[in-house]
Amino acid sequence: MRQLLIVGIGAGNPEHMTVQAINALNRADVLFIPTKGEAKSQLADIRRDICDRYVTRADGRIIEFAVPVRQTAGRSYDASVDGWHAAIAQSYERLLLDELGPEQTGAFLVWGDPMLYDSTIRIVERVRALGTVDFDYAVIPGITSVQALTASHRIPLNLVGKPVQITTGRRLAESFPGLAETAVVMLDGEQAFMAIDDPEAFIYWGAYLGTPQEIILSGRVLEVREEILKTRSQARARHGWIMDVYLLRKGADFDA
Amino acid sequence: MRQLLIVGIGAGNPEHMTVQAINALNRADVLFIPTKGEAKSQLADIRRDICDRYVTRADGRIIEFAVPVRQTAGRSYDASVDGWHAAIAQSYERLLLDELGPEQTGAFLVWGDPMLYDSTIRIVERVRALGTVDFDYAVIPGITSVQALTASHRIPLNLVGKPVQITTGRRLAESFPGLAETAVVMLDGEQAFMAIDDPEAFIYWGAYLGTPQEIILSGRVLEVREEILKTRSQARARHGWIMDVYLLRKGADFDA
Repeated sequence: MRQLLIVGIGAGNPEHMTVQAINALNRADVLFIPTKGEAKSQLADIRRDICDRYVTRADGRIIEFAVPVRQTAGRSYDASVDGWHAAIAQSYERLLLDELGPEQTGAFLVWGDPMLYDSTIRIVERVRALGTVDFDYAVIPGITSVQALTASHRIPLNLVGKPVQITTGRRLAESFPGLAETAVVMLDGEQAFMAIDDPEAFIYWGAYLGTPQEIILSGRVLEVREEILKTRSQARARHGWIMDVYLLRKGADFDA
Repeated sequence: MRQLLIVGIGAGNPEHMTVQAINALNRADVLFIPTKGEAKSQLADIRRDICDRYVTRADGRIIEFAVPVRQTAGRSYDASVDGWHAAIAQSYERLLLDELGPEQTGAFLVWGDPMLYDSTIRIVERVRALGTVDFDYAVIPGITSVQALTASHRIPLNLVGKPVQITTGRRLAESFPGLAETAVVMLDGEQAFMAIDDPEAFIYWGAYLGTPQEIILSGRVLEVREEILKTRSQARARHGWIMDVYLLRKGADFDA
């Protein structure tokens, strides 16, 4: 049977690669690499560097494929994502049928960890549901940008014994401070932290985490949010793209 | 100046080790390994296996040290943990002064990732605050049991565009289902999932994740909770210890 490996490759530092992920890449006859309109060509470079550094088998093939673009016009967010996933599932189905022999193993390289705000697992489940190609698959975890963020800031994710909310920019208002005194915000294209005006709230922000261009900033939200906004905007202009993530915290360990 | 590395070593599978963590262990003149009354001697074995497999420098020393026991009698949870951390900080201070030369590097090996329900970072900050020993430190992320859990179950952590709450058994009642339709529960010594009686709630449970003894179970909470309870109790009796984690979910991708 065909085997698929969904491999987390870490947040941008090639040394985030685990031994399990390295072994998975070397088990694969074919490495499937999505190209998302490579404005982010630096990310493509890091991925290439990972393959060059760690793939030791000489007969592995690399197949780059274009990911379908999400259609948003006249659709709700959910309908838009749902349709997009269906289109990607069809392209995966073709890749498996055309590029992978019936006894071969293929690997999908995924930034961070396939579990966290990534849809490769659910798309692969859609391909299985299509019923046209028989395969099994496994998931290999990887270091996420959340972990790269807390490591660079040298902070614990949670306060002692307290919960943590991982959320999106769109949902920040309902997630923080709320019950969890810590919120990690991903996928925030609109700098939702600018709306936080609680003087007790702290922010730990990072961009290009794990790469040589990494930038981190932290402090009281009210004192540093303008600097983050400016830094983010300048860096984005300079690099042509940005990926960032941040943690908001209110309170401290051992607060009553 | 002395350098400390707080190194995440993954959730139990030696192949969770990242290249960054392997390099960190090899940069260290001394590896500091806590021994917590090793009923969990299998964990000690895995840690030893990690050192044997990946530490290639011949002159590194391994220092095992006993972690002070937490005093709970007549104290609140917070006061108990606070006092415990202070005691551990004193023991770290002695280790740094006695075992590490002024230009040497030491590494603390931490299960999972130092950011997640682990106190090494905050204890090291306490040692710095004592002001008696000059050192700098860095944090190296590692694969957490949450990632091992979702990888083994082959599930995404979050529903599409939705938040996730990471919480403890003690706080489960206030965390789930709540705003986040997904809750990950760690540090649950009391099987708080037994109190979930929502027929729409699913559980994805795992124990000894990443090790050859790994067990996973999943299904509707109401249909599998008794089986999990029994499996957990039998496994604990057989091994003499257990570490488990689970994810609760209500709802599905693209729910209105």
